[in-house]
Amino acid sequence: MQQEKVKERTASPNTTNSMMSHSDTICALATATGGALGIIRISGPQAFGAVSAITAIHCAECEGNTLHYTCVKDGTETVDECMVSVFKAPHSYTGEDSVEICCHGSRYILNKVLELLIQNGCRMAGPGEFTQRAYLNGKMDLSQAEAVADLIASSNQATHHLAMSQLRGHFSSELAQLRAQLLKLTSLLELELDFSDHEDLEFADRTELDKLAKNINKHISKLIHSFETGQALKQGIPVAIIGKTNVGKSTLLNRLLKDDRAIVSDIHGTTRDTIEDTIDIKGVTFRFIDTAGIRQTSDEVEKIGIGRTYSAMEKARIILWIIDEKPTNEEINEIIHQTGNKKVIVVMNKSDLNESQSFTIADFPIISISAKLDTNIDALETVIYETAGIPTLADSDIIVTNARHYDALTRAQESLNRVISSLQAQVPGDLVAEDLRQVLSELAEITGEGQITPNEILGNIFKNFCVGK
Amino acid sequence: MQQEKVKERTASPNTTNSMMSHSDTICALATATGGALGIIRISGPQAFGAVSAITAIHCAECEGNTLHYTCVKDGTETVDECMVSVFKAPHSYTGEDSVEICCHGSRYILNKVLELLIQNGCRMAGPGEFTQRAYLNGKMDLSQAEAVADLIASSNQATHHLAMSQLRGHFSSELAQLRAQLLKLTSLLELELDFSDHEDLEFADRTELDKLAKNINKHISKLIHSFETGQALKQGIPVAIIGKTNVGKSTLLNRLLKDDRAIVSDIHGTTRDTIEDTIDIKGVTFRFIDTAGIRQTSDEVEKIGIGRTYSAMEKARIILWIIDEKPTNEEINEIIHQTGNKKVIVVMNKSDLNESQSFTIADFPIISISAKLDTNIDALETVIYETAGIPTLADSDIIVTNARHYDALTRAQESLNRVISSLQAQVPGDLVAEDLRQVLSELAEITGEGQITPNEILGNIFKNFCVGK
Repeated sequence: MQQEKVKERTASPNTTNSMMSHSDTICALATATGGALGIIRISGPQAFGAVSAITAIHCAECEGNTLHYTCVKDGTETVDECMVSVFKAPHSYTGEDSVEICCHGSRYILNKVLELLIQNGCRMAGPGEFTQRAYLNGKMDLSQAEAVADLIASSNQATHHLAMSQLRGHFSSELAQLRAQLLKLTSLLELELDFSDHEDLEFADRTELDKLAKNINKHISKLIHSFETGQALKQGIPVAIIGKTNVGKSTLLNRLLKDDRAIVSDIHGTTRDTIEDTIDIKGVTFRFIDTAGIRQTSDEVEKIGIGRTYSAMEKARIILWIIDEKPTNEEINEIIHQTGNKKVIVVMNKSDLNESQSFTIADFPIISISAKLDTNIDALETVIYETAGIPTLADSDIIVTNARHYDALTRAQESLNRVISSLQAQVPGDLVAEDLRQVLSELAEITGEGQITPNEILGNIFKNFCVGK
Repeated sequence: MQQEKVKERTASPNTTNSMMSHSDTICALATATGGALGIIRISGPQAFGAVSAITAIHCAECEGNTLHYTCVKDGTETVDECMVSVFKAPHSYTGEDSVEICCHGSRYILNKVLELLIQNGCRMAGPGEFTQRAYLNGKMDLSQAEAVADLIASSNQATHHLAMSQLRGHFSSELAQLRAQLLKLTSLLELELDFSDHEDLEFADRTELDKLAKNINKHISKLIHSFETGQALKQGIPVAIIGKTNVGKSTLLNRLLKDDRAIVSDIHGTTRDTIEDTIDIKGVTFRFIDTAGIRQTSDEVEKIGIGRTYSAMEKARIILWIIDEKPTNEEINEIIHQTGNKKVIVVMNKSDLNESQSFTIADFPIISISAKLDTNIDALETVIYETAGIPTLADSDIIVTNARHYDALTRAQESLNRVISSLQAQVPGDLVAEDLRQVLSELAEITGEGQITPNEILGNIFKNFCVGK
C-alpha cells in the first residue's frame, strides 16, 4: 500500500541512525586557547578507558553526570590538576560514553593531555564530530545540530533567539506538523485509491484534498518567505550612510558605535576589527557599508556621483541620507532616482547649529539630530530599527535562517505545486502520491529524519563547525 | 623573648589571611572566546544565590562537587543549555562557595550570562582575583599562586615542570626547611642570651651557630644561582645564528622549526607569528635571534662587520656559526674576538657537497650537517641542548624562576651575611637576632606567610594574571 511505503521511508530516526555505528573514540579541545581554563572532550567506547589511564578516576565505576578532582599524569610526572566530568551513554551530549577534562589553559598542558589521550586509543575529532554523533545517535535531528553551530556563532539577541528556537526543536515540530498534514493527505489519497478499485464508483471528491494541500502550501510559503528576514538577521541588515563631505557621517557612525561595547570584548581585549562597523539596535545587527566614495567636487556642485557609492547603496536595505541643510530639488530627484525602492531615512544633522526647519523630502522620514551633542541618537536608532521592518520575534515564530533548509523548502514547494495541479487535473491518485512522497522526502532532508543522509551532505553540514563541538 | 617575637611575626597564614575578608561575589569568563564551549566562574557569598536566580539549580541545597544540567534563563527566554558545577566552601578553588557554568562559546551567550550574574549581585572579577582569594583564604601560599600564572603561561616541558613543581609546593617546603633551620639558629642564640644573664659565664661557643648559619647560606646561594637557569628556561635560551650569506642559515632554521608543530595550534590555526623563531629541544625553548645583518661585501672580503649582528651576538647565550668551507685564520680570530666568552658551535653545512674535511677551530665543537638533505639535524639539536648546559630537572630540583623571589632571596642572603659576620665578630646575641629576624621576614615575603602582604605587592603579583583565574 502506498501509505506503508511512505511510512517505510519516514521510519523513526533512531532505527536508521543506529545503523551507523561508531567504534572509535574522539577527543578535541572544546575551548579556544589563551584562557585560564580549557576543556578537552572525549567521546566513544574508549573514553572511560583512556581517561582512567591518565588520571586516578575509574570512570567506568563512576555514576553518570559526576564531577571529580584529579591529576592528569604522564607516567610519574604531573601534567595538571583538573576536574573530570563523567557522562554515561546514552545520557551524554553525543549519546556515547563521554568525559570532559577541565584543566589549566596552557597550550603545553592542553597539547599534552590530547597527546596522552591519543596514546591511549583516542583520535583527534574533526569539526562538529561530537554534534554529528549526537545526531547519528538520535539525540537531536539535523536542523537542531545545525542550530548548535548557529548558537555558537550567534552574536546578538536576534541570531541567538533564532538559533535557540531551532535548537529547542521549534522548527522541527513545525516540520512534524507539516509532515502529519502531508500524511493525512496521503491517507485521503489512499482512500480514493481503495475506492477506485470498485469500478462502479466515481473518483472521490477532491475538494478536501485540494484544500488540505493548499493549506500545507501556505505554511511552506510562510517558511520560505521568512528566509529573507532570517538572512538579514543572520548577516546583519545592510545600511549605507550617504551624504556630502563634512556633513558629519563619521561623527554619527562613532556616536552609534559608542555604546555597542560587549563585556567580554572589553575585558579580554578581543580584536574588534571585523565588527567595528556593525551596530546592534534592539538585538538586531545593522551592518554599515562604507560610502567613503561620496565626495563633492567644487565644480560639480551638489552632485553625488561616484560609482562606489552607488554600489554600496545597491547592497543596502536602508539608506541613511545625512544632510545639514535643505537639499535642492535637483539633489532630491537624484537621490530618489538612485535609491529606487530602497528605504531612505533623511538625517538632518547639526540640529544645534541649524534653526528648526520644517520641510518634507518625498515621503522619506526626516529626523533631526546632533551627532556632536548626542542629541536624538536614540530616536534615530528607533527609526532605523522600525524602517528595517523586522517582525517582533515571538517564541513561536519560525524563521528559516539556513540556506540548506530554504533550498529543501523551495524544492518541497515545487513538488507540492505539482500535487495541487495534479489534484485539480484529476490525475490518478497513484501518480499524485509519487509527488507527495517527494514533498515528504524533501522536508525530511531538513531534519535528516527517515532516511540515511548521504555522507557528502553530512560532511558539508559539519565541516563549518568548530572542532570540539 | 626573642623567639616568641619571631614566632609572632611568622604566625600561621590562616590567622592573618582570615583578617582580610571578602563580602562581594565575583564572576568572570575563565576561557578564551572563540571556542565551542566557554566557562564562567562565580565565587563568593552570593555565588549560589546568583546562579539559582538564573537557572533551575538550587545550588545551596546541592552537595559540593556536583554537576547539573540546566538552562540559563533571562526571564522566560532561554539563554543557553549548560552544565553547572557546584563547589562548597571551603572545598573549592577559592575556598569560597563557587560555581562554574559551562555553556556554548558564543560571545553573545557568554556576555548575557555575565550580565545576568551582575544583575544578581555579582561583579566582574579583576585579573587573578580567584587565585588571590585562594591565597587569602589559605588555600595556597603566594609562591603557589604565582605558579598558577606560570602554569597557564607554560609552553614547553621545562617551564611546565618548574611551574607545576612550584604549584605543588616544592619551593614552599624548601623555604619551610630554611625557616626551620633559621628558627633553630634563633633558639640557639636565645640559649646564649639566657646564659649571658649569668655574668660568671662567658659567651657561648659560637662554632655551632656559625656552622648552621653557613649551611643555611649555602642553600640560599644555591637557590639564588638557580635563577639564571630559571630565567633561561622561562624566556627561552637565546641563540644567534651567524654566518655569511648563502651559507644556508634560513634553510637550517626552517629545518629546525619544521617538526616543532603543536597539535592545538595545528588544528585551531593559532597564530604562530610570535613563536615562529623559537624551537623546543628536549622540552627546552631556544630563542633564535635574527642576524640578518651578517653580510659579506665583495670589497671587504671575509669580514663580518655589521653592528646589528654584534648586538644579536651580545644577547645570545649560544652562537651557531654556520660555514660551508674552512674559514681563514683571520675569520677565526675575528669570531673569537667578537664572541668573547660565549659558547660557539661551528656548523659545517652542505655536507652533501663538501668532501669530508677534518679541521679544528679553536676549541669549538664542530658538527657537519646538510640542512638541505636533513642530515645530522638531530645531532645538531643534541649539541645545542648540551651546550646550553641545562641541568636535568629532577622532581626534587628547585629552580627559582620569579624575579620577586630572586630579589627576596638576595636580600635574605645580605641579612644572613651580616648574621655570619656578627657571629664571628662576637657581636652580642640580641643584635644578631635582629638580623636573623630580617632573614626570616625576607624569606616569608616569598610565600606571603606570617605577615600581611601589602596590597600594592599583591596588586603587582595578580595584575599579570588572566581574568577568570
